[in-house]
Amino acid sequence: MKPELKIFKIGGGIIDREADLMEFVRLFAKIDGPKILVHGGGKGASDMMKNLGIAPQLVNGRRITDAAALDIVTMFYAGKTNKQLVAALQGRGVNALGLSGADGNVILATKRPVREIDYGFVGDLNEASVNSGLIQQFLHLELTPVFCAINHDGHGQLLNTNADTIAASLAKALSKEYAVSLHFCFEKRGVLEDISDDNSVIEKITLNNYGELKESGIIADGMLPKLENAFEALQFGVSKVVIEHALHINEELKTTLWLN
Amino acid sequence: MKPELKIFKIGGGIIDREADLMEFVRLFAKIDGPKILVHGGGKGASDMMKNLGIAPQLVNGRRITDAAALDIVTMFYAGKTNKQLVAALQGRGVNALGLSGADGNVILATKRPVREIDYGFVGDLNEASVNSGLIQQFLHLELTPVFCAINHDGHGQLLNTNADTIAASLAKALSKEYAVSLHFCFEKRGVLEDISDDNSVIEKITLNNYGELKESGIIADGMLPKLENAFEALQFGVSKVVIEHALHINEELKTTLWLN
Repeated sequence: MKPELKIFKIGGGIIDREADLMEFVRLFAKIDGPKILVHGGGKGASDMMKNLGIAPQLVNGRRITDAAALDIVTMFYAGKTNKQLVAALQGRGVNALGLSGADGNVILATKRPVREIDYGFVGDLNEASVNSGLIQQFLHLELTPVFCAINHDGHGQLLNTNADTIAASLAKALSKEYAVSLHFCFEKRGVLEDISDDNSVIEKITLNNYGELKESGIIADGMLPKLENAFEALQFGVSKVVIEHALHINEELKTTLWLN
Repeated sequence: MKPELKIFKIGGGIIDREADLMEFVRLFAKIDGPKILVHGGGKGASDMMKNLGIAPQLVNGRRITDAAALDIVTMFYAGKTNKQLVAALQGRGVNALGLSGADGNVILATKRPVREIDYGFVGDLNEASVNSGLIQQFLHLELTPVFCAINHDGHGQLLNTNADTIAASLAKALSKEYAVSLHFCFEKRGVLEDISDDNSVIEKITLNNYGELKESGIIADGMLPKLENAFEALQFGVSKVVIEHALHINEELKTTLWLN
């Protein structure tokens, strides 16, 4: 039997509210066994760009990561947020190790090719991107890796990658050696049947009812790519994908995804 | 015989000039055997504080690290500079691992006690600060640790520590297991006999002639704490301390310090 590994991803909303972030840290610290944390960025980076007079670059409504933006997100994600989380986890007795993909070359990304849009310094991942050997060594040393959304191309260039994508890629790569559960944490207790009712959590979604939920519009917007990532991870051998509230990871009510 | 370990410290000046920093990376990448890099911060952090309208806090002419300043230096040192260096080293084939003291709890600092001056979030180190066991594990994994000047207190608080102090503390702690040479790199080829003549390098300084050099004023200002750190490191068992030009680490002309 493979050993268990739990991978948690937290997003921007919770990072912006320090009290909530510290409450998540408290709950995450209590989770037994090998675990990994992946964090996105908060709106601190955009706020700082605004304060510095750096206008966000948008093309067709999509955010472009130019050199100035990359600098700022690297500072926030790999600097402020990552180290704040690592120090807080250490304060709770978790031997956290902050990582970008460049550190130990643990994640190697490819700059997104320029087609209709040049997204700038955005890094895409593929099946060979995750260096699972070194991550396993860190886990054997009883370290808890804490990944930010900054990777590199192996030639000296840093790249910004979506944090959901990083979490799913880690889960897939590490599922060869571990029974991985992948936890997407956000500000609801799961996928809601009725968006206005926080308790209307759909507790189980399979590939079968996923189609219906999409067609009926219950699953839409930001939840769609999250679930696409999730089902792909399950198909690659990840044991379980959970969508849950970052401040209630210790409670039962959540959405669990299964292939069938 | 202990295995060799080379610890290099680079300062702020070189970090501000990207072409120089990349030349240092090229030279550092060529150094054989286990090695560690410690970097200070450039003036990017002060520039950004200025741009954001955050006034530097000075008491009796000494810089105070308040919460706003700590945020910015954490972003620059642990974020931008550390990840830029790690990515550039990876591009040169060095498996660099960026670290603050909080990561893996490798360096545990103590907030400087408030006496006449409250320095704010400044971390002092003592003999037990360096977790040399985990650093050795990283070296056994053929990783090259890259330390920034951010540490933590073990209770969730990040702290800023002088990079020379970090380099010397690492050298002392690791000298139990390694024959450590500690390299302070800056913008001169060593300690100069005549400050206006870049080639007047004093190639050897011992504890004996150090006193004379201080009295004659040849060693003054910023060089004094560097040399105090250096001799203390030698007394703790560090094999060799070198003061040299960051862009000429591959050349012979440099200052080497010995106990006698």
